[in-house]
Amino acid sequence: MKKLINSPETFVKESMEGMVLAHPDILKAHFDPNFLYRADAPVPGKVAVISGGGSGHEPMHGGFVGKGMLDAACPGEVFTSPTPDQMLEAARTVNSGAGVLFLVKNYSGDVMNFEMAADLARAEGIRVLNILIDDDVAVKDSLYTQGRRGTGTTVLAEKIVGAAAERGYDLKRLADLARRVNINGRSMGMALTSCTVPAKGSPTFELGEDEIEIGIGIHGEPGRERIPWKPADEITEMLALSIIEDPAYTRVVREFDEEKGEWVDVELTDPPFQPGDRVIAMVNGMGGTPIAELYVVYRKLHFIAEAKGLKIVRNLIGNYITSLEMQGVMITLLRVDDEMVELWDDPVLTPALRWGI
Amino acid sequence: MKKLINSPETFVKESMEGMVLAHPDILKAHFDPNFLYRADAPVPGKVAVISGGGSGHEPMHGGFVGKGMLDAACPGEVFTSPTPDQMLEAARTVNSGAGVLFLVKNYSGDVMNFEMAADLARAEGIRVLNILIDDDVAVKDSLYTQGRRGTGTTVLAEKIVGAAAERGYDLKRLADLARRVNINGRSMGMALTSCTVPAKGSPTFELGEDEIEIGIGIHGEPGRERIPWKPADEITEMLALSIIEDPAYTRVVREFDEEKGEWVDVELTDPPFQPGDRVIAMVNGMGGTPIAELYVVYRKLHFIAEAKGLKIVRNLIGNYITSLEMQGVMITLLRVDDEMVELWDDPVLTPALRWGI
Repeated sequence: MKKLINSPETFVKESMEGMVLAHPDILKAHFDPNFLYRADAPVPGKVAVISGGGSGHEPMHGGFVGKGMLDAACPGEVFTSPTPDQMLEAARTVNSGAGVLFLVKNYSGDVMNFEMAADLARAEGIRVLNILIDDDVAVKDSLYTQGRRGTGTTVLAEKIVGAAAERGYDLKRLADLARRVNINGRSMGMALTSCTVPAKGSPTFELGEDEIEIGIGIHGEPGRERIPWKPADEITEMLALSIIEDPAYTRVVREFDEEKGEWVDVELTDPPFQPGDRVIAMVNGMGGTPIAELYVVYRKLHFIAEAKGLKIVRNLIGNYITSLEMQGVMITLLRVDDEMVELWDDPVLTPALRWGI
Repeated sequence: MKKLINSPETFVKESMEGMVLAHPDILKAHFDPNFLYRADAPVPGKVAVISGGGSGHEPMHGGFVGKGMLDAACPGEVFTSPTPDQMLEAARTVNSGAGVLFLVKNYSGDVMNFEMAADLARAEGIRVLNILIDDDVAVKDSLYTQGRRGTGTTVLAEKIVGAAAERGYDLKRLADLARRVNINGRSMGMALTSCTVPAKGSPTFELGEDEIEIGIGIHGEPGRERIPWKPADEITEMLALSIIEDPAYTRVVREFDEEKGEWVDVELTDPPFQPGDRVIAMVNGMGGTPIAELYVVYRKLHFIAEAKGLKIVRNLIGNYITSLEMQGVMITLLRVDDEMVELWDDPVLTPALRWGI
């Protein structure tokens, strides 16, 4: 295993230290428990937005901490859920009194630990709501997931919800927006190569010399199928059509009902894409993919979207939610309305996303 | 060979098309000969800044076309110099009458073809000056280079010189600034893995399972030494000290003397770094390196710079000048004065670098 690390044990902490040394104006770090948070937190009157998950997906989430996006990010070890004490301490640190929204990718460990942290924080008088991201159309019920996995839509949700928090949305309105982003976003990815978790030291899975995996998860979880390599246009078509032609998807998620003071089951349905829909399109590298190749994918995606009557009104092309050094690509399409587009365009200042500032 | 391309023959063109489809507000493409150029070119009264070189180093240079940076970028085939007709047609397209500055990385083919293009453009009455970037301290006289190779400083030069052009610097003043950036910038890189040029289909060089190469060139040219893998801190120290302790470097470059109307030899000396120097530090991934690892490198670089009395006043961490999917890192340090810092902070709007807009 050849990586630019000192040891698997120090990797996450040293990477966090590097981020803070590089961007002291944007973020600070808390260690034991570990989280990154906005340098100016708590921001008076603002709902705090917190996310987190296993490390190895950078820049998500730490790279999205800053003005207009996240107030805090809680990194677990590589591909390992963060623990409740991380989210609890982060919530205490960034809560201004206006409450906290947890944005949680749908992996069983993350869901459980964020729920536990929310209960602990509420016991201390901090208002917390959790919204789940479960947008990966590839498979249902995966290695670490009941239902659909949470992937690319998380990035777009953090930007849009972060901007809304900055504008002063209250906690309830912010949670409604986050839920609306989730049910309108869909993703699917693929891998050309595997990746190696530092603590394990060998590839997470094996792919043949000429083999690719369609529908891969961001931890290397099995996808839909392994097939021989295909040209980028065909790969793009497989991903894009899986997303665009995905039928309505209904599932039950757990959310906290503040009026009842308890967790409740909520049925959510993702409406299918329709001609005329406006979308934000993300073409996301899995960590080891040259950006020039991502533009080859975007080119084909543009033509497919056009043929299907979808209008790409904004795009994001680069490595935003990754699987260490994996080569591959994920496509995310998010159906947007005027409000979401306006929020997308709002200024943002984070290590990984920056405009208008 | 598994890549997200359709064929080696169409790769560069389709990637350019993807960029234009994704960023029509920022850039346009010209094909046969190939170049990307600012959507609003020519900008009245502004000197045009043009760069280029072999493809495979993206986002450099096409990703740096836009307001506050390049007016045009001329991509050759992967790891192959662009031809004079590309730079000539680009100069014709973006010249507002205020002249054109060519920023040229020091590779023999690039140098020759940009000189030829400059002569052809001058024959048409377009004022052109060429400034060379030769900042790689690793080796002198390499596979494709006489003297030092041009690498990371190119990115910083394109930002700073681009901002100055936007502010209205005239051609002579802009060339003086570009030369000053070059002699104050130094880089050195290393590779954990090789990379595969699409047209060849097999790795450019071979590295053993536990072997790394220190001082690698951006086309995989041999560096200083091949050694067993070391922890990131030790690798960072090797690169940073090679840069910081590099003695004064004197060489002769060819520049066009407008008063004499001919190419002349100019002797340039890079002054060594001194305690008290302020620097912009770039920690650049070679294309396939996870950003979390780049922050581990930045962490150590910060401490080394501090111990050496250098003050890092700005930083850039990410994949900016790459070698396809190569894993590895390059460090660039640029000694800056107030003028360069101000220009660095100026707004920029390109596909790969964006702030203030």
